[in-house]
Amino acid sequence: MNFKEELSKRTEEIEGIIKNYLPAETDFQKTVMEAMNYSVLAGGKRLRPMMMQETYRMFGGEGKVVEPFMAAIEMIHTYSLVHDDLPAMDNDEYRRGKKTTHAVYGEAMGILAGDALLNFAFETAVGAFDLEMDAKVGRALQILARKAGIYGMIGGQVVDVESEGQPISNEKLDFIYRLKTSALIESSMMIGAVLAGADGGEIQKMEQVARDVGLAFQIQDDILDVTSTLEVLGKPIHSDDKNQKTTYVTLKGLEQSKKDVAMISERALGTLISLEKNNLFLEELIRMLITREK
Amino acid sequence: MNFKEELSKRTEEIEGIIKNYLPAETDFQKTVMEAMNYSVLAGGKRLRPMMMQETYRMFGGEGKVVEPFMAAIEMIHTYSLVHDDLPAMDNDEYRRGKKTTHAVYGEAMGILAGDALLNFAFETAVGAFDLEMDAKVGRALQILARKAGIYGMIGGQVVDVESEGQPISNEKLDFIYRLKTSALIESSMMIGAVLAGADGGEIQKMEQVARDVGLAFQIQDDILDVTSTLEVLGKPIHSDDKNQKTTYVTLKGLEQSKKDVAMISERALGTLISLEKNNLFLEELIRMLITREK
Repeated sequence: MNFKEELSKRTEEIEGIIKNYLPAETDFQKTVMEAMNYSVLAGGKRLRPMMMQETYRMFGGEGKVVEPFMAAIEMIHTYSLVHDDLPAMDNDEYRRGKKTTHAVYGEAMGILAGDALLNFAFETAVGAFDLEMDAKVGRALQILARKAGIYGMIGGQVVDVESEGQPISNEKLDFIYRLKTSALIESSMMIGAVLAGADGGEIQKMEQVARDVGLAFQIQDDILDVTSTLEVLGKPIHSDDKNQKTTYVTLKGLEQSKKDVAMISERALGTLISLEKNNLFLEELIRMLITREK
Repeated sequence: MNFKEELSKRTEEIEGIIKNYLPAETDFQKTVMEAMNYSVLAGGKRLRPMMMQETYRMFGGEGKVVEPFMAAIEMIHTYSLVHDDLPAMDNDEYRRGKKTTHAVYGEAMGILAGDALLNFAFETAVGAFDLEMDAKVGRALQILARKAGIYGMIGGQVVDVESEGQPISNEKLDFIYRLKTSALIESSMMIGAVLAGADGGEIQKMEQVARDVGLAFQIQDDILDVTSTLEVLGKPIHSDDKNQKTTYVTLKGLEQSKKDVAMISERALGTLISLEKNNLFLEELIRMLITREK
């Protein structure tokens, strides 16, 4: 077999490996997954993963631990192209003879798909821990990546952006708030617990606490957008209205929203207290979120 | 001490921890570091790191391993705000009473500073390996994050964007090419070597190989932008001219550039072969880069 045939065979093999790690196009945020996959699969020489694999083999590597890193490096490379092609950057409509990501999906999605690929690269790479080792730090990294990415914060942002100017169901609004706001708080509390050696049940309870805290926090945000002032808030009020966003307040009304903030916060506190770890400061902090004015 | 005093004390403590992990504002790419630091230091309640720390303490955590994760979560939170404020997204000029990042630094830098913060979050978090453990996977993650971030690819992009329409020195052009193009290739080869158990000297040599391969690859890109066609290349030619970019070709001329691609590629091959690992495929791949037409 000559080099060109060998190259083409290996490129195909690497494409197969990369595809194994691409996200399924599913759920509310599937547009960003489509945009990610469109970007990665729009072609390219796959030089970076190829070189990684070759170097791995060169030094006697035989296992599969290199594969998530191969996919990750291609995702990072791809995200950089997606952002580079944006109107504010090089403003390119075509790459490799195909429409660029923002040309197909719009500018906002181009930004988000790039972010998503960068984050997903780390999410994919830390998956290597499953193949070779386990450790608290590794688990913490996995949580960080997962909760920040398309199954967490970025996923929520995407659905949020796509929902502007449209009616939203309760279910979808919950999904947005859970991902957009709660996910990073879940990440915060879970990582704290993991690194301190908490057990699985404790970590799960902290995830519940954080989910509720995030939800209450976001609803309070919606309330303040209606009831506060520019001076107090330090940012423009009525921005949800300006952006034609359905919020908890528009769905449930102001009074019910206030009641729900209190109820959800109390539920979070109840779960927290049930752990009998006695963190009064954290309890106070959560209470503060209910009554905050900015 | 009442809760408000305690909160203010802890917020200050957390600000101190976060600041420890922010990048120094230095070197050619310092604008992005300024933009990152401006974004992170523009205020905020530091709730996420605070909650992480509290949860850590709650479960008996006492060491410093949580600190890089505290900084990381705040960086991820901040990047999401920076991108969210962009004109293509919410188009907000003010946040927390201060100008948003793109309002101060421009839209392209807003995109890049966000990317940089996201990447730097992982770069910071994987620093936790130094505090608690060591492992091949951990080392590989560190390389991935470092080479993709402000000391690698994003750093190069930033200087590239800022240099449009201006004369550039040889030194700065080398800097851009090293970071923008070589860094991810260095990452690829180094990770392959690390995961396969190569020793320090071998890893360093692969970094040299990759640096040269990246440089030759980028110069070849400049050459093709001048000599190729849209049909062959699959993307617009003369784009460097359109974007008023100084390239290797504009600095050294077409003939010298062609000679340099050959010379640098040969140097890469020489280093590779000196390792006596006998990877003919990788050698061929590098040779292909010299003669590629797209």
